[in-house]
Amino acid sequence: MIKVRPDADASFDESTFEGSLLATEKAALHLGKTAVWIEVPILQSRFIELAANCGFVFHHAEGDQASLCKWIDTEHTSRIPCFATHQVGVGAVVINLSSNQILCVRELRKNYRPYKLPTGLAELGEDLDQAVVREVLEETGINTVFEGILGVRHTHNIQFGRSDLFFVCRLSPLLDNDGSLPEPVPQSGEIEDACWLSVDEYRDMVNSDDDNVRHPMMQRIMDLVDQGADHDIQRTVLSSVVPGRKSSPLYHTPLTK
Amino acid sequence: MIKVRPDADASFDESTFEGSLLATEKAALHLGKTAVWIEVPILQSRFIELAANCGFVFHHAEGDQASLCKWIDTEHTSRIPCFATHQVGVGAVVINLSSNQILCVRELRKNYRPYKLPTGLAELGEDLDQAVVREVLEETGINTVFEGILGVRHTHNIQFGRSDLFFVCRLSPLLDNDGSLPEPVPQSGEIEDACWLSVDEYRDMVNSDDDNVRHPMMQRIMDLVDQGADHDIQRTVLSSVVPGRKSSPLYHTPLTK
Repeated sequence: MIKVRPDADASFDESTFEGSLLATEKAALHLGKTAVWIEVPILQSRFIELAANCGFVFHHAEGDQASLCKWIDTEHTSRIPCFATHQVGVGAVVINLSSNQILCVRELRKNYRPYKLPTGLAELGEDLDQAVVREVLEETGINTVFEGILGVRHTHNIQFGRSDLFFVCRLSPLLDNDGSLPEPVPQSGEIEDACWLSVDEYRDMVNSDDDNVRHPMMQRIMDLVDQGADHDIQRTVLSSVVPGRKSSPLYHTPLTK
Repeated sequence: MIKVRPDADASFDESTFEGSLLATEKAALHLGKTAVWIEVPILQSRFIELAANCGFVFHHAEGDQASLCKWIDTEHTSRIPCFATHQVGVGAVVINLSSNQILCVRELRKNYRPYKLPTGLAELGEDLDQAVVREVLEETGINTVFEGILGVRHTHNIQFGRSDLFFVCRLSPLLDNDGSLPEPVPQSGEIEDACWLSVDEYRDMVNSDDDNVRHPMMQRIMDLVDQGADHDIQRTVLSSVVPGRKSSPLYHTPLTK
């Protein structure tokens, strides 16, 4: 693949751009390349229109740059990979064992149920354990320790037409220096209420006969909670076989041997 | 959020675009909106440059359309969510129990080890079980049944700077009508070799003392394989509490009660 940056070469003015693009395409074909890529800074977007006239399409764009591509291998169908397809959400089951209480919030928006878990989106490059600890701290002011994963939900056609993988994690709250359970502080502008609810009260809610209150996924998650953390999906860090790539977490069921 | 499509309104010609955009922004602020969005067809990309001059940036783009946004609420930091952050990969552990053989491939590109599992990327909107069955069929011609998930690896800074969630799945091969194990057929142009390898031979390979042959993640996965499918992460379909949203699969460890 060949990258062309309009701003990197003075010869890319509007009058000569299409000619240069066609010459690049011809050279790429001659070299056995299968696709041509162009990166265009947003302030030179007039080149995007010109490239589109030559058969280029948007591959992706973010901030101040767009990446366009054109598949030029007429003998095979395009192998250009799709851009990212998923966002990753995290949900936090934070239970204080000694008082049998679960940390709950009510958001200012999107309340499908009276109380819900602290949730949020993982940021680009963030590990799941980092993301869920950060979200709990932001939404409730409670510091926690990641213990394991209880379940992963897969949904499609979420915002911007992409898909969502939602990891429900088990966490332990960190107690104050005097051993007491800290009071949650709801995040300003985002969270209407944050509180410790009795686990029994929460379980009654998700198991309710009322279709407007019950929560089938959280019913299952609470069954998994009751099994104990030893049964949760565990986080292990393993080295990669790809040259230069860092070690990565692998999540799997407990090994009994 | 307000969407403006330059092609939807004849008043959006280049000479009046900036004025119309500023008027829209003012109206949006007046309505208490926090952001303005513009969708621009690729063949009208000259409007992108004009919008960038008014403070808009690319949010995302694909095919023949770009979406730009501008956060206009000066009292709060931007809550515009990032576009998709992840691609989803699938790997297939296809073991024929009666012959104790595992389905392996060697790709034409990216061979970090002599043999590897059939792998690939889930397409947009595809469930994990659909994706892994499709990839095995494409790469080897073998029909399979999804059984469960053995592990999930999370890596960052993969192609286009995004992250990757790689789900290693356990599958059973479908036998021919006469009960025999079908011969794999390597995918033309992608796969150099596809074959049934003895599970013992494969395990010796991933457990090798040779750093160029051993595979730490697959060592762990083979330990999980040996535990038996009853211990794998299971797929359950549960209804959603979000109005209008379809049921979604939830993946979790087996419930023992």
